[in-house]
Amino acid sequence: MRNIKLTIQYDGTGFAGYELQPGKRTVRGEMEKALFKLFKKKIKLISSSRTDSGVHSVGSVVNFKLLNPIPTDNLQMALNSRLPEDVRVIGTRVKGQEFNARFGAKSKTYEYLIYNGPVMPVHLRNIAWHIKQQLDLSAMKKAARHLVGKHDFTSFCAAHGDDKDKVREIHQLVISHSSLVIWGETKVPLIRIRITGNGFLYKMVRNIVGTLVEVGRGTRDEAEVKTILNAKNRCLAGKTAPAHGLCLIKVCYN
Amino acid sequence: MRNIKLTIQYDGTGFAGYELQPGKRTVRGEMEKALFKLFKKKIKLISSSRTDSGVHSVGSVVNFKLLNPIPTDNLQMALNSRLPEDVRVIGTRVKGQEFNARFGAKSKTYEYLIYNGPVMPVHLRNIAWHIKQQLDLSAMKKAARHLVGKHDFTSFCAAHGDDKDKVREIHQLVISHSSLVIWGETKVPLIRIRITGNGFLYKMVRNIVGTLVEVGRGTRDEAEVKTILNAKNRCLAGKTAPAHGLCLIKVCYN
Repeated sequence: MRNIKLTIQYDGTGFAGYELQPGKRTVRGEMEKALFKLFKKKIKLISSSRTDSGVHSVGSVVNFKLLNPIPTDNLQMALNSRLPEDVRVIGTRVKGQEFNARFGAKSKTYEYLIYNGPVMPVHLRNIAWHIKQQLDLSAMKKAARHLVGKHDFTSFCAAHGDDKDKVREIHQLVISHSSLVIWGETKVPLIRIRITGNGFLYKMVRNIVGTLVEVGRGTRDEAEVKTILNAKNRCLAGKTAPAHGLCLIKVCYN
Repeated sequence: MRNIKLTIQYDGTGFAGYELQPGKRTVRGEMEKALFKLFKKKIKLISSSRTDSGVHSVGSVVNFKLLNPIPTDNLQMALNSRLPEDVRVIGTRVKGQEFNARFGAKSKTYEYLIYNGPVMPVHLRNIAWHIKQQLDLSAMKKAARHLVGKHDFTSFCAAHGDDKDKVREIHQLVISHSSLVIWGETKVPLIRIRITGNGFLYKMVRNIVGTLVEVGRGTRDEAEVKTILNAKNRCLAGKTAPAHGLCLIKVCYN
């Protein structure tokens, strides 16, 4: 039995998230459909991340086991030719039996994009959060420092998250000005929030971003973030940032 | 009577092109709907460019005349709040009576993006042409040189183009390797074809790109481009490049 690891990317816009949902178009649904077309049997995918509707990915990892030997060289092309254009397999590997994309993940990196200007560029509308009010990046950076390290993140976990242990470690949280040139010479200014940790609770990244943005708007003091964290109470944190600004960048294993 | 100039951008993906078409969603249709909502009267737009379905723009210019005086300061915001998210007004100006967005245009610049690699990144699928075969950029650059200057571009005009005079002047045609980083550190390599001229015949840019790509693939010699140009025969040029790789960058007036 072979254990196959796939690295995939997807545009979250057209999906009701990663996880299977009856009657809805999901990333896992499209992936399993393509695997079925290829192998003529039902294959169950294990995934590093079950992102919400609208969330993007450029580096999710999934794995599946297969009894019959297959030529993995052509697997990527064979799957891509059976997948819709908004999901792509960007890497394939044969792994040892013990490899598990979900439980083996040691760290994950997400990025959140904010367009902080008056008129939202049309081509970024599905990948960045539009905030017109000028954000105070220096206050946001100070606030972010309180979150780095090992903490109980109950205050930043969605009410219906099903993780019992709410302790996670954030290795890095970097907020920076950045820009993007798609066409011409026009640099589109963006705020980029990059966060790496050993794992994230349900909606934790978006709750952190939402809270940091309130600090950036000046409606919260940077020191409040520490109070919120210590309170272990979801009611205290800021509003959840919208899904479409978020992208899973990479997942690391041992 | 005031003559208002608007600079607009749009994501061509969801439109059947710029020009009005019965029963179809068009850029002009959405713009005129927004103007109607705002001024409660039918307003006719004059445009620098009537791009095809799928073609993008980050700098089209339109104008319209209005009898009643309006506060142009708020016009941009007022229109954007009445427009769908895939069209934005990015500039407004009051111009003299003689200004005409169509006939006053002195030069236009387009860019065409090509993703020249094995797997198309999902987030570029609507803005770049995917070509797997490695293109010979140096041959394409040589071929491009034949096109720069004042020529009869009959060979590069779509059969049903309605321009009688087929002479146009290409001021600049630059082909370059470029890259795009949306998230993470992954640089997505692109080929960028930038073309500026005093005007373009129907589908001329896409026919030029299609022909240059055939040179890049090695199925045509760079010198053939000169022969095609001189022949003034549309049957000789390459296939029209797909619409979604094309973007109007800017339009210049006196």
